[in-house]
Amino acid sequence: MAEAFDLDGRLEADSHFIADGPLSQLRLIDDMRFPWLVLVPRLPGASEWLDLDGGAQRLLLAEINQAGQLLRASGACDKLNIGALGNIVRQLHVHVVARLEGDAAWPGPVWGAGTMQRFGTAAREARLAQLREKLQSLTP
Amino acid sequence: MAEAFDLDGRLEADSHFIADGPLSQLRLIDDMRFPWLVLVPRLPGASEWLDLDGGAQRLLLAEINQAGQLLRASGACDKLNIGALGNIVRQLHVHVVARLEGDAAWPGPVWGAGTMQRFGTAAREARLAQLREKLQSLTP
Repeated sequence: MAEAFDLDGRLEADSHFIADGPLSQLRLIDDMRFPWLVLVPRLPGASEWLDLDGGAQRLLLAEINQAGQLLRASGACDKLNIGALGNIVRQLHVHVVARLEGDAAWPGPVWGAGTMQRFGTAAREARLAQLREKLQSLTP
Repeated sequence: MAEAFDLDGRLEADSHFIADGPLSQLRLIDDMRFPWLVLVPRLPGASEWLDLDGGAQRLLLAEINQAGQLLRASGACDKLNIGALGNIVRQLHVHVVARLEGDAAWPGPVWGAGTMQRFGTAAREARLAQLREKLQSLTP
């Protein structure tokens, strides 16, 4: 019996579902300070990018490209930051973040920087709707 | 006339050449606190992973895999951290870092964490020699 994919509880609490890609859930990190997406491959037990097989790595790379394009299409972006850390949450997840010069963590990394500023419900739903709409326009 | 590849001055000052891969220079970050490699594609003007063509992305992905394997083969590693940030140095570079629970930045990111502890000359040369030797054993 295949092991089910379970989203880590911390990822679930700190982010919101946008869409399912071929390999990964695309989620919005619940922090208004940064345009910040996270990709979570639906692979039970996956922790390290290196341990994915070649096919999964290529799918994830394509999803990272799409997430970056989505951020560029959805607002200003001086620099994209891409990171797979996992020191706290071991479930494999890849961050894709649009950075703006002078943003709340600039020029440092977003990870561990200050305190999350969560969206209110209406702002969150509007943001998710905007991202889903833009994502449709990117899908070939 | 092709534009020459010039390594950014800050990357040059903060890291040491290990080897050339198909796309990138593999370099050791000059910080004894972390086993920390950086890949610098030899592509003039490259800044964002997303703007590489598919062939370059696949080469870079293979080099990231190899750098991670090299770190695993060279010492303890509780978690690999992979990151492409570039907020300070815009020349495209990808960090591959072996993290240990309880290391100097744990569980936060290494970027922007405290002060570099540079290798002395002998320790640096020994480390570079060790990495080059291990790299040979990984190359198919």
